[in-house]
Amino acid sequence: MNKNLELKLKTIKNKVDILVKNYIKKNNPILLYEPAKYSLKSEGKRIRGLLCVLGYEAVRKGSFSNNIFYAASSLEILHLFTLIHDDIMDNADSRRGRETIHKKWDTNTAILTGDLLVGVAYNSLLKAKFKNLVYAINEFNDALITVCEGQGYDKLFETYENIKIKEYYLMIEKKTGKLIESSVIIGAILGEANKSQINSLSNYGKYIGRAFQIKDDLLDIIADEKKLGKSKYGDIKESKKTYFYAKALSCFNSKDLHTLKFIFQKKSKSDSDINKVVELFEKYNLIIIAENEINRLITLAKKSINNIDKSKREPLEFLADKLAVRTY
Amino acid sequence: MNKNLELKLKTIKNKVDILVKNYIKKNNPILLYEPAKYSLKSEGKRIRGLLCVLGYEAVRKGSFSNNIFYAASSLEILHLFTLIHDDIMDNADSRRGRETIHKKWDTNTAILTGDLLVGVAYNSLLKAKFKNLVYAINEFNDALITVCEGQGYDKLFETYENIKIKEYYLMIEKKTGKLIESSVIIGAILGEANKSQINSLSNYGKYIGRAFQIKDDLLDIIADEKKLGKSKYGDIKESKKTYFYAKALSCFNSKDLHTLKFIFQKKSKSDSDINKVVELFEKYNLIIIAENEINRLITLAKKSINNIDKSKREPLEFLADKLAVRTY
Repeated sequence: MNKNLELKLKTIKNKVDILVKNYIKKNNPILLYEPAKYSLKSEGKRIRGLLCVLGYEAVRKGSFSNNIFYAASSLEILHLFTLIHDDIMDNADSRRGRETIHKKWDTNTAILTGDLLVGVAYNSLLKAKFKNLVYAINEFNDALITVCEGQGYDKLFETYENIKIKEYYLMIEKKTGKLIESSVIIGAILGEANKSQINSLSNYGKYIGRAFQIKDDLLDIIADEKKLGKSKYGDIKESKKTYFYAKALSCFNSKDLHTLKFIFQKKSKSDSDINKVVELFEKYNLIIIAENEINRLITLAKKSINNIDKSKREPLEFLADKLAVRTY
Repeated sequence: MNKNLELKLKTIKNKVDILVKNYIKKNNPILLYEPAKYSLKSEGKRIRGLLCVLGYEAVRKGSFSNNIFYAASSLEILHLFTLIHDDIMDNADSRRGRETIHKKWDTNTAILTGDLLVGVAYNSLLKAKFKNLVYAINEFNDALITVCEGQGYDKLFETYENIKIKEYYLMIEKKTGKLIESSVIIGAILGEANKSQINSLSNYGKYIGRAFQIKDDLLDIIADEKKLGKSKYGDIKESKKTYFYAKALSCFNSKDLHTLKFIFQKKSKSDSDINKVVELFEKYNLIIIAENEINRLITLAKKSINNIDKSKREPLEFLADKLAVRTY
């Protein structure tokens, strides 16, 4: 059974992959389309595309339409836009083992390429000719606005010394969670889901989104760098307000908290600074706590879609489990 | 008659103004919504909004719907997005007499604010509940993509020493012309125009767009700075490939051409450099040639809509004439 589901996901991922990577046919102006293609040709997990197609499959009654892949690829392309602009703001030099666009070209090129990809993403969505397309566009645009808000909170919280776990969740639900949730919802909208199905899939998406970001924060500490495609400890180096930082604030004793804050306020951190932070996270079992939280959220995600037919929800359950154990 | 038309345009402009300036109700994250509101509250000619409403009025058969103002404001907000990102790329410190966002805040804030405004622009358009909304969204998105291409050519041509008038037109038709053309077309689409009407209004928009940009290039040289809201000669200082530069290449003698190119390759230009360039433009009558070209294009724009009822095309003709004589 799992082999069938594995194959099913792989088939969808490949179709999304091919569509995204070859989406742009234009060449001119080269200053714009060269970096745009470079971005589209990057490797990705295509989780948003998968969620869109699986959301559609979970609810559709009529025959399968390949148009859903246009919606799936629109979500991936919108995601790529966010990465390009975030990388500028985060001063990130590499992404998935390759130079970022502002590094390989320059900041202006990266700004413009990101802008173009918003248009390209909409272009792809507009090709998904389903009855409910306007509703899907509304959801898509809400996601765009929310992602910007999330990035705004992310930049704002960089200036805060203290951050509550509630604020952390507010930020990640907007910055990462919303687009993940919208992916499955847009699939469901295009499959003409009823309100109760939308509601279930929306909860599923919310839990998956949260788990996904905590896993990201976790991988920054425990991943194999080769698989991750970028350096570890980037969040610590950039003093990012991750799950671990927010948790630390609520459970560290005052001495350890002082050490953590002292290191986090340094602009440049030494290897021993970073080791000290990781050591403190481990001392308070935060890695295990994070893993437990991810598993709890994944269980909640799967429970949310209990009201969907078993055979139709299975791929979504399978994907949820895969996300929990991913290594990059 | 002209007083009635003047009043009509003023009434439309005021409605678009109020909608755009008060469009955003949210406050948080403040780091994002404060600069976004700052941008929306800037003064503007609202030409795109006017064109959208007049395009709608020129073709609609049914009763007038105020929803058209949502489409009008979406075009103005999309325009504001392009200004924010262009100002970063152009290193511009002021715009309409106020500091630019990347100057008043910082580059990251300006990137993110621009991104948000794309979402806000779509949000406004999505409120324009007309039968043909999806077609309008397609046109709107084409405009977004084309504007990025235009900006790409603009940056590319900054690196060229030579530029043909044909290349100049390619650039401005994408960078400025397309959004102006789309404004009138989106109004017409939402008013359920037939193909011939769309075609006429599209030509009208194309000519207006070209005239508009040449007028912009002209105002950079001859405007009253107070009315313009920014310093004159910005294009010369930034070695912009304007109408004047492209024209100069085709008519200057080799000595004058050498002088022009020599000054244009300087990163920093003295007042006497700038005076010399203006003097050369005047020596070859380029200011009069530009004025004649603007008038020729405005005449062509008005001719394009001959097939539309006199009473319905009059406001568009009146607006075209106003654009030709504008002083800012």
